[in-house]
Amino acid sequence: MLRLYHYWSSVCSQKARLCLAEKSLPWESVHVDLFNFENYQPAYTRLNPKALVPALDHDGRIVIESNVILEYLEDVFPQVWLRPGDAYERSLARLWLFNAEEIAHPNVGVCSHNARHAVRFKSAGISDEVVLRAADQCPNPVVGLRLRRRIEVGVTEADENEAYAKLDYLLDQMERQLEQGPWLAGAQYSLADIGMAPMINRIEVLPRPEIIAAARRPRVADWWQRIQARPAFVEAFSFKNPNADDPVKR
Amino acid sequence: MLRLYHYWSSVCSQKARLCLAEKSLPWESVHVDLFNFENYQPAYTRLNPKALVPALDHDGRIVIESNVILEYLEDVFPQVWLRPGDAYERSLARLWLFNAEEIAHPNVGVCSHNARHAVRFKSAGISDEVVLRAADQCPNPVVGLRLRRRIEVGVTEADENEAYAKLDYLLDQMERQLEQGPWLAGAQYSLADIGMAPMINRIEVLPRPEIIAAARRPRVADWWQRIQARPAFVEAFSFKNPNADDPVKR
Repeated sequence: MLRLYHYWSSVCSQKARLCLAEKSLPWESVHVDLFNFENYQPAYTRLNPKALVPALDHDGRIVIESNVILEYLEDVFPQVWLRPGDAYERSLARLWLFNAEEIAHPNVGVCSHNARHAVRFKSAGISDEVVLRAADQCPNPVVGLRLRRRIEVGVTEADENEAYAKLDYLLDQMERQLEQGPWLAGAQYSLADIGMAPMINRIEVLPRPEIIAAARRPRVADWWQRIQARPAFVEAFSFKNPNADDPVKR
Repeated sequence: MLRLYHYWSSVCSQKARLCLAEKSLPWESVHVDLFNFENYQPAYTRLNPKALVPALDHDGRIVIESNVILEYLEDVFPQVWLRPGDAYERSLARLWLFNAEEIAHPNVGVCSHNARHAVRFKSAGISDEVVLRAADQCPNPVVGLRLRRRIEVGVTEADENEAYAKLDYLLDQMERQLEQGPWLAGAQYSLADIGMAPMINRIEVLPRPEIIAAARRPRVADWWQRIQARPAFVEAFSFKNPNADDPVKR
């Protein structure tokens, strides 16, 4: 049995849900409330010592890190192939999985703080003191120290500009890649597209959606239309926010 | 034919050389002088727009990103298997490949700046102005802006302490993983061990080598002894520094 520990709007959870949907695999949902810091609690960090979602429980074996989960699902459930057969195209699929984590994810994270995360904390009445106490409880300092800095120092306009410069660079690479074929790894939709789809989905609701508009990057915009038209995308991204009061609706 | 663009002491170049050596694959060397900023020049960024080493040219197809190169070599030259056959163990191999890039690499990078990189710039008479000019030429802002900050702001003791806290966390995970078997993905030496070996090799010559000592982390220390005893390790790590005047000898 497949059980996914995830959060409705986390980009990495969306990656895992999208892969499960593309493969039409049934799975049990365990929603982990990141804004209640459930992912920092021992009940969860026993499963995932990195204190991050998603985590996949497959018959008692725990697989963590979204890119690793995607490759695992591909290894175990190859009925719907999402890794290209050609070794070079497969390397492109893995390059884009890596780019999504190395460049897209941390930088959409920076740009999501003021626009989404801080808004969410405020609307739920979660004070800075509560967030800082939670950050100190997080066993993974990569996560805990980042959250502490976001509360203590904040995300400045300079930070956001730098993050957008990095996203611009990556989107330029993406536009160029899509000159070679309709999907990021070539002729076939693959894990590469699954890795980038949640990042582009997030950019669309951040303050500078023009960076993925057709006027600026026509191939990225066309790819994004084709991604959203896939039934698996609709299924994976329609997972409902369990908190009706959350000001973040998408 | 395999041609590797690499730098003798870059941890990611070492990963690629170690994998090639484990597989006994012949390869042609193109040494890219990072301290002459050759990796920022168009002649190189045409091959690798991320402006990083290594890059692998396999019969004219260019594969970039060290983890992607390792998986590519495994896909194309599986005669010596470095990915476990069991899907769960394979997920552990990929988790450690990812951990090496997500946590180990950037943080040994932080801790290498004052101890190695700044020393190297100084001994070669490369002024801050020259480095800043090079940083501005780098097409990849992830790399260029990081170098600019290291010159303008420097790496403070607080930065180093934070980086060591993250390395400590990762090494705790590594110690725990090695309770489960002799190698990072279980019973078999794998890409996971190749991913982490250059990181531990670097930590050994940084200011706090005690974090990998037997007194502190016996399983990590024992693993490190076993890694160094492998003929492929000796081969991959004996690639000579072409610059005899470089103060960094290892």
